[in-house]
Amino acid sequence: MNTNSLSYEQEWLNAYNRAISEEQWIPIYPSSADFQQDHRERQEPLTFVLIHGSWADASFWDGIAAELSKKGHTVYVPEYPGHGADTNKNVTHAVITKSIADFIVSKNLHNVVLVGHSFGGSLVQTVAQIVPDRLKRLVFLDAFVLKDGEMLVEELPPAAQEAFQQLRQSSNNDTIMLPFPLFRETFVNLASLKLAQSIYSHVTPEPAKPFYEKLDLKKFYSLNIPKSYLYLTEDNALPQGDGYGWHPHMSSRLGVFRLIKDHGDHISTAKTEPARLAQKIYEAGRD
Amino acid sequence: MNTNSLSYEQEWLNAYNRAISEEQWIPIYPSSADFQQDHRERQEPLTFVLIHGSWADASFWDGIAAELSKKGHTVYVPEYPGHGADTNKNVTHAVITKSIADFIVSKNLHNVVLVGHSFGGSLVQTVAQIVPDRLKRLVFLDAFVLKDGEMLVEELPPAAQEAFQQLRQSSNNDTIMLPFPLFRETFVNLASLKLAQSIYSHVTPEPAKPFYEKLDLKKFYSLNIPKSYLYLTEDNALPQGDGYGWHPHMSSRLGVFRLIKDHGDHISTAKTEPARLAQKIYEAGRD
Amino acid sequence: MNTNSLSYEQEWLNAYNRAISEEQWIPIYPSSADFQQDHRERQEPLTFVLIHGSWADASFWDGIAAELSKKGHTVYVPEYPGHGADTNKNVTHAVITKSIADFIVSKNLHNVVLVGHSFGGSLVQTVAQIVPDRLKRLVFLDAFVLKDGEMLVEELPPAAQEAFQQLRQSSNNDTIMLPFPLFRETFVNLASLKLAQSIYSHVTPEPAKPFYEKLDLKKFYSLNIPKSYLYLTEDNALPQGDGYGWHPHMSSRLGVFRLIKDHGDHISTAKTEPARLAQKIYEAGRD
Repeated sequence: MNTNSLSYEQEWLNAYNRAISEEQWIPIYPSSADFQQDHRERQEPLTFVLIHGSWADASFWDGIAAELSKKGHTVYVPEYPGHGADTNKNVTHAVITKSIADFIVSKNLHNVVLVGHSFGGSLVQTVAQIVPDRLKRLVFLDAFVLKDGEMLVEELPPAAQEAFQQLRQSSNNDTIMLPFPLFRETFVNLASLKLAQSIYSHVTPEPAKPFYEKLDLKKFYSLNIPKSYLYLTEDNALPQGDGYGWHPHMSSRLGVFRLIKDHGDHISTAKTEPARLAQKIYEAGRD
Repeated sequence: MNTNSLSYEQEWLNAYNRAISEEQWIPIYPSSADFQQDHRERQEPLTFVLIHGSWADASFWDGIAAELSKKGHTVYVPEYPGHGADTNKNVTHAVITKSIADFIVSKNLHNVVLVGHSFGGSLVQTVAQIVPDRLKRLVFLDAFVLKDGEMLVEELPPAAQEAFQQLRQSSNNDTIMLPFPLFRETFVNLASLKLAQSIYSHVTPEPAKPFYEKLDLKKFYSLNIPKSYLYLTEDNALPQGDGYGWHPHMSSRLGVFRLIKDHGDHISTAKTEPARLAQKIYEAGRD
Repeated sequence: MNTNSLSYEQEWLNAYNRAISEEQWIPIYPSSADFQQDHRERQEPLTFVLIHGSWADASFWDGIAAELSKKGHTVYVPEYPGHGADTNKNVTHAVITKSIADFIVSKNLHNVVLVGHSFGGSLVQTVAQIVPDRLKRLVFLDAFVLKDGEMLVEELPPAAQEAFQQLRQSSNNDTIMLPFPLFRETFVNLASLKLAQSIYSHVTPEPAKPFYEKLDLKKFYSLNIPKSYLYLTEDNALPQGDGYGWHPHMSSRLGVFRLIKDHGDHISTAKTEPARLAQKIYEAGRD
């Protein structure tokens, strides 16, 4: 297991310390009927900031954001440099991080549930280091949880690293474009070909630099912010198994975390079943 | 893999030997319609003894026991020392084991399907050593399957072991109390906060000693009793992954076993969806 | 991870090369309504050749083949030597492979989606080496993906290998018969006893030789045919975990592949829920 032992223990003890400073829970044991109606209860209104991943833009969240809004939540979907309308692909991880932290500060947001998808997980880690006091919980949706000092490509198997390097070198602006067959099999494996093609038609080359930057995450591993990992079980964007993958490989680095699972692949389920995913993001994000 | 090779082989050969001593199966191949109606067929009536886990009492099984009874099964839910109404927390694994074995003998039960949840798995192992002839099948529900000579805390990662040690030392009666935030994230991760609080309001400190006792399980690994493992896929009470977790890490120690899976966390699903879990326990327990 | 690095990289680069030779995708982004209707769209008609596994015959596919045909697909279910009506159990892996390749050629099939279940996975690998130009995609359904030079029994844990050896030696015609209790727990774990017995009543001893032959699979690992792995999550015919099992252990050897998952065990789900499995096989097999 790649658990960072120190942080795990810290988390555990932090949880203990939070617990003993909280008031006593009112001991009203619900009836069986109450238990069974639990999932129909009104949702606690939350403030979500949703951070998309690579080869995507803020429209990745369209369906999910609409569903969360319908349930009474406040939802922000900031675009970040090098993505969406921004054609300047010359960006660093730090520049992207700062833009998201600035967004949160400029809107004066507090008690934010910060959700990152894929590459967005590494941004959740770095944004949390800048504006920890504004964050209520961190949610990783099939997202990278990098070790302190690690660069993202180190989470890819050697052959994929080499292919990335070749794709990077074949670009004229230090970007990496995913070939369609690879995208179709590993990012949208549950989609029909028609849907896969439609989604791919919006994919643009991804700035390469942020994948190759070692991140200083020491502060992240000392923060006392609750964390959740939402794992979609057909996600094959990263190989799963010994030493690789979303869960439990990267999720276990969070130490104490809330685990939520659902069916889904890396990209298309957000498009085909936004209501179901929004419900799971709520379950990951609530207190 | 942590398979105990000797027992695995023994199981395999035992299975073979059981097979050749059984009568020939009546070769009536069902029609497609029969196949599809299979799950609606009347249940074979079974005798269940349900053993709860730590930070719980016999009421853990309330909903599930009621559902099993409705289907015509006979269900026993013995409380054991140091739990429920028993305020004396000074108990050992052997004392608890004996109380359950005595219960089975005093009620003169036979053909028992013995079901253990969590810590209760280690009790299924030790009870089976005492009254093997009264047991028809052992069912482990996200339950510990310890190695011969192992103590339960050895299945926790080092940081959790250290936190347990601190929690133990901070008690005045050699117990361990789970702080709420830890319980909420890892034992009832699928529950609403309200339900999580309600369940937690009934949690009492757990006797520590049985976690730190090395268990002699040599006889368990020589027993020829059929076994099932029921794994709830969102259970995050133990970290999952290399060298840790319920399935396949501990389940594989059973050698030949029947695998059943369903959605659920460690505690709350038993409260919110007792009928579904009762059905899975039946599928794990039937012949 | 047991990924064959060379093939993985080759797959990745092949995928890249296929991509850049394809025409541009028409960039019509579907509306939300389109996304959600995706799964109801008409199926692309495919030609399936379905290869069963050990202790089974072509009737394994009956329900699934009927469901695929109903949807407009062309389905072939060839029986192979040593199985079904063929009582001569003295067969080799090469003889079986040739019979399937010959079948495909004799029917003059092209654009075949070749589906292998269990042992049939190793046949998909060897058949693909003989008639690669006739195959559109390879689908592995809880199927063996062997390494170059490996024999099938090497994928079993040591105790199971020893038991297989004993079962083999106890036969009078170099076959292996699975004892019922083992079959019931690990091949049809989700079935009722009645259904388990009915299925078992059709099981005949399996030719042993093909399990003990080292396969030359160098060509397989150089082929540029798309691949899918369909994993049924309750399949416990092989132990799952470190160094063993269907997914991700053997699936990861495919390099870039499409992952599809569903509930099911090794044998009985094909009987009880053929429509659901047929849908998943279509999702694994489509472009």
